[in-house]
Amino acid sequence: MSDASQFLLPSGFRFGATKAGLKKSGRPDFALIVADEPAAAAAAFTANRVIAAPLILDKENLRATGGQVRVVAINAGNANCAAGEAGLAAARATCTAAAKAFACKPEEVFPSSTGIIGVPLPVEKLVAALPALSASLGAEGDHFHQVAQAILTTDTVEKTAFSQFDCATANGAAGEIRIAALCKGSGMIHPQLVPHATMLVYILTDALIAPAHLQDYLNRAIEVSFNRISVDGDTSTNDTVLLLASGASGISIDDNHHDFAVALTQVCTSLARQIVADGEGITHVVELRIAGAASDADALKVAKAIAHSPLVKTAWSGSDPNWGRLVAAIGYSGAAIDPNAIDIDFGHLPICRDGGRAAGFDEAAAHNYIAQPEFSISIRLHQGEGNCVFWTTDLTVEYIHINADYST
Amino acid sequence: MSDASQFLLPSGFRFGATKAGLKKSGRPDFALIVADEPAAAAAAFTANRVIAAPLILDKENLRATGGQVRVVAINAGNANCAAGEAGLAAARATCTAAAKAFACKPEEVFPSSTGIIGVPLPVEKLVAALPALSASLGAEGDHFHQVAQAILTTDTVEKTAFSQFDCATANGAAGEIRIAALCKGSGMIHPQLVPHATMLVYILTDALIAPAHLQDYLNRAIEVSFNRISVDGDTSTNDTVLLLASGASGISIDDNHHDFAVALTQVCTSLARQIVADGEGITHVVELRIAGAASDADALKVAKAIAHSPLVKTAWSGSDPNWGRLVAAIGYSGAAIDPNAIDIDFGHLPICRDGGRAAGFDEAAAHNYIAQPEFSISIRLHQGEGNCVFWTTDLTVEYIHINADYST
Repeated sequence: MSDASQFLLPSGFRFGATKAGLKKSGRPDFALIVADEPAAAAAAFTANRVIAAPLILDKENLRATGGQVRVVAINAGNANCAAGEAGLAAARATCTAAAKAFACKPEEVFPSSTGIIGVPLPVEKLVAALPALSASLGAEGDHFHQVAQAILTTDTVEKTAFSQFDCATANGAAGEIRIAALCKGSGMIHPQLVPHATMLVYILTDALIAPAHLQDYLNRAIEVSFNRISVDGDTSTNDTVLLLASGASGISIDDNHHDFAVALTQVCTSLARQIVADGEGITHVVELRIAGAASDADALKVAKAIAHSPLVKTAWSGSDPNWGRLVAAIGYSGAAIDPNAIDIDFGHLPICRDGGRAAGFDEAAAHNYIAQPEFSISIRLHQGEGNCVFWTTDLTVEYIHINADYST
Repeated sequence: MSDASQFLLPSGFRFGATKAGLKKSGRPDFALIVADEPAAAAAAFTANRVIAAPLILDKENLRATGGQVRVVAINAGNANCAAGEAGLAAARATCTAAAKAFACKPEEVFPSSTGIIGVPLPVEKLVAALPALSASLGAEGDHFHQVAQAILTTDTVEKTAFSQFDCATANGAAGEIRIAALCKGSGMIHPQLVPHATMLVYILTDALIAPAHLQDYLNRAIEVSFNRISVDGDTSTNDTVLLLASGASGISIDDNHHDFAVALTQVCTSLARQIVADGEGITHVVELRIAGAASDADALKVAKAIAHSPLVKTAWSGSDPNWGRLVAAIGYSGAAIDPNAIDIDFGHLPICRDGGRAAGFDEAAAHNYIAQPEFSISIRLHQGEGNCVFWTTDLTVEYIHINADYST
């Protein structure tokens, strides 16, 4: 998508990736993001009750350091999940090796893993690859790009997002805050992050900002981005979003900085939409705009019921304007509804009014509209002021092919 | 499956079906089940908050009559749902026409519809077909078979179940109670019936039994049969289960008759499994046996999370023993679990122990086991005494093909 080399990266970070031998394809599968000095860190992890070993350790480490990270060590090709004590030991071994390489505490290392669940992680491959990888790091766009490539699994494209804004320094001089982010994610995508990811997201900024404030900004941005997408409704054991602030810009951001919040939300929303657009086997990206629900929570229930309905998603794959399946999903969503007060539009085309077929319903026009690779469906429930925007995908034959023989 | 002509049908009912012109295929699509005298009735309907017009009327009618039904009028090819006032008027017109044909009250008619949602029902075709259909009814196996065929939509096979047991009459003479049942259902299958169905189920008996008792028996049987299956996780707007007792055997059944409860449950379980086995595009039927959950409700949460996971279902379609996806689904099910206390067996093959790969895990044997058309997965959670048995299916390329161009 974006060519990282065209953007200025936030100061204070170095990047690199190598082939440790975890991916059967032989492609790069082990990446490092290293902060020159301990960076303020905020993070969010999957709400799945089965969580991968690196996430268990990440939570421990962030608590131990009060939110400080020097090294992010990410492997693709193995999720290090459902691997018991051996899994935790593997994650700890990564931390120990990285701490030695960068002369930091093991608690300042943030390990991440993505790939197959239930297969022991051959951590010795990571440990063996560390010295050469550590010596190869750099702060240029190409180095950033290497990380963005190495963390991919079934993804077909690299996913990055950038933002920068002017901001006066403490002494009134002109300054600039930069944000750069990268992520992976294609299948098992229905993030439910706590305080709300097979999605791995790393967001870097050179702002100077306390960890607690950083967490508040991250929580608010996640709620309207990563927690508003679903490819297949499967919530992963490994989902992770990490936001690091190096402070290298020298510009302090307090707890109520509008421009920073906007820039962070834009970056998160961009990555969330890139994940959906690269969903496994998908041919359509669908924006769901739910309005008039009894509450925002109800609006989200409706969006998720639709986003998780195999019948709705399959109809989309055939560009079939079978809106009755939408109505059925709205009905079982658990949201408060009046079946006779449901309006549905495809783009600007009236489809359903008062729970029945709209007078102006034009099947051919509706078909043509949703034959587009991206389209929008608006649903008004007339129950209150609750609303949400949610991004999802169709369900295709290709998704089945991709996932029917993943491990064999 | 079963050849209805080999079974003795319960006395007191006549059957018939015809081509009213609703199915594009031109196959029979309008069926009647008529009780010689008003039959005691118990029913259960979908928990979807969008419910089809005939279900709204059925509830009204059963309340008005105190649970008495003379005529069941079933059309396939159109669900008469999301059709507003016109839909209700169409359902009422069916009742009026059937009441006239059989000299009963309109409230004693029980209309049912299945097929596409959101398209007006051409009720004039049903009304026009009624006189000839009414004149053609019969009480033989062939007539029963006509109904079982006419109500099918994307189903590929007829689904019926029968049971009979000996039962002394009031004066001590030898007697027999018979149960015969038929149903349809293949896609949009995840019944959540209230007191707990595009599933339509009709169960007939010649027992003499009060409507209230009949409802109790039906509720208990449904809870362990139709409410324990899912093909695609989509809960229909039209699901209906109707149990009619003609009393023609002259044998009274009280509220605590073990043999009747067992026979009814067997018939319901048989039909439920037939629906799953005829699920749209499926190639594997999977029995999930969840044990050791904190509660039965938690066991059901785990079963449903697995049954609704596209990643798990797709892996099954490829006979892929990727048990990590099962663990992930257990983790996001919402049930109380300990990730380190999960055991999984495929049949008698140990797969996962204490949340990690079992010592005896044999990938080739696991693959061969789940390559079978029917297989069983046992999951033990070690949290308590909660358990359930649930039947579901894989998710295949053929399901996508069937549903990508249903209405176009």
